[in-house]
Amino acid sequence: MLDRVLVISVPGGPPRVVPAGEPLLRGDDLGVLRGDGVFETLHVRSGRPFLLAEHLDRMARSAERLDLPLPPVPRLEALADTACGAWAAHREGALRLVCTRGPEDGGEPTLFATVAGIKDALRDQRRAGIRVVTASLGVTADARDGAPWLLGGVKSLSYAANMAAQRWAAAQGVDDVLYVSSDGQVLEGPTSTVVWRDSGVLATVPDSTGILPGTTAAHLLSRAAELGLTAELRMAVPADLLAADGVWFASSVRGVVPFTELDGKPLTVDPLTPGLRDLLGYPA
Amino acid sequence: MLDRVLVISVPGGPPRVVPAGEPLLRGDDLGVLRGDGVFETLHVRSGRPFLLAEHLDRMARSAERLDLPLPPVPRLEALADTACGAWAAHREGALRLVCTRGPEDGGEPTLFATVAGIKDALRDQRRAGIRVVTASLGVTADARDGAPWLLGGVKSLSYAANMAAQRWAAAQGVDDVLYVSSDGQVLEGPTSTVVWRDSGVLATVPDSTGILPGTTAAHLLSRAAELGLTAELRMAVPADLLAADGVWFASSVRGVVPFTELDGKPLTVDPLTPGLRDLLGYPA
Repeated sequence: MLDRVLVISVPGGPPRVVPAGEPLLRGDDLGVLRGDGVFETLHVRSGRPFLLAEHLDRMARSAERLDLPLPPVPRLEALADTACGAWAAHREGALRLVCTRGPEDGGEPTLFATVAGIKDALRDQRRAGIRVVTASLGVTADARDGAPWLLGGVKSLSYAANMAAQRWAAAQGVDDVLYVSSDGQVLEGPTSTVVWRDSGVLATVPDSTGILPGTTAAHLLSRAAELGLTAELRMAVPADLLAADGVWFASSVRGVVPFTELDGKPLTVDPLTPGLRDLLGYPA
Repeated sequence: MLDRVLVISVPGGPPRVVPAGEPLLRGDDLGVLRGDGVFETLHVRSGRPFLLAEHLDRMARSAERLDLPLPPVPRLEALADTACGAWAAHREGALRLVCTRGPEDGGEPTLFATVAGIKDALRDQRRAGIRVVTASLGVTADARDGAPWLLGGVKSLSYAANMAAQRWAAAQGVDDVLYVSSDGQVLEGPTSTVVWRDSGVLATVPDSTGILPGTTAAHLLSRAAELGLTAELRMAVPADLLAADGVWFASSVRGVVPFTELDGKPLTVDPLTPGLRDLLGYPA
């Protein structure tokens, strides 16, 4: 099996597996020239993508807000199938589905997929937890609601600032960033959704703040009752998280990873953590 | 000559012209997966790039802030040379120099260039001017100063929101957007720097606001004395622009284009406009 899978999809034909080192995109594709496109990252277990329908729904919403004609669902499903089929079923993987606006001089959107392994450092976080620092996103919690040009809630390919925030965290000697609004409200991580438990409530941040609605977090909340919890969308400030019974980042690649520290203050790992991980079906 | 030039640069060899339809980038290049890389767009006239050294300087500053190892200047110059050499000398063109973080699994940054023609609709704006609406960027004018993770002043490949803002403007029936801060200060356009004349002063916005320092605007200001003007960096609100003697967007592709309308209010085209255009050496 391949250690890194790349698959291109063209209209009217089956998706085609491309050797990893072989170029697949034109240099004038707007995906690279402008970060102009949408993507989804999915967890692959037992050779299948997890929460495929939910991710395709979110991808369609992102594309709609970017005014990008996403190819029809069966073509996206065939792409995911082919990509996962080329990946060893016993290995955890991360499937990316990518749709760009296509070449600058016009034509079809470019649709392709990648599957790669999940770095040990990220898998280890499921047990070891993460140290996190807050960083302001510069906007108020309500700034992106009603300002569609700011692309709140859109999972576009323009992630340079998200990546820069994670490098900045590493330079501070911690694992990740929790974005807060300029008015002090908790938002999200650069690649994750924040989830916390406050007694009998499992909470995350409402979409009206412009965060990306988390697929993994939504699945957790939808099954909260199985752990005797009530799901709730709530605004919070960092002090609320410090006082919570547990705080996690949820994402497709990581699953659910507990905060052990926020802004240098220790946080206790909630004993419910393995239960949350089991709800998602991620290995420890 | 080619109607669209694509050139790839690899270490230790000469840049290679790639046929326009031929793939040049891997699907797992972080330039497309994350919009993670830097670029510059330069005006090409008489087969040469305009303000090459200034653009390479800015590209180096962007790369430094992204912690991206930009290839050495001679390799960038050779890339620009090869790209412009494949472009008809009598045609205006737009040269893009692009450097991405390279493939996700590591290795060298990806360095390539494109040259394409300038759309008639953009060239026409030099004479006809543009109608512009303000749109909030959601941040205060000082939010990005001291917050390096927000990438203020960095010309990264993550331009999805800039493109969305221009589509949003088109949907309002106007030509472009002028970003303002959440505290009402004038910032920049999605792909341009704003310049205005207030009596004997030619002004633009200071970099401390997190705008991209405009190469074309800086050149204009550096030669303001030739038109009897004094150059100045100034903060402004939209009302200041409505009261100005002339307002322009400056960019490599457009040159200098006058505002004819801002938020539905008419603006007079400054008779100095052709003089500014001549300073830059752009055709009308």
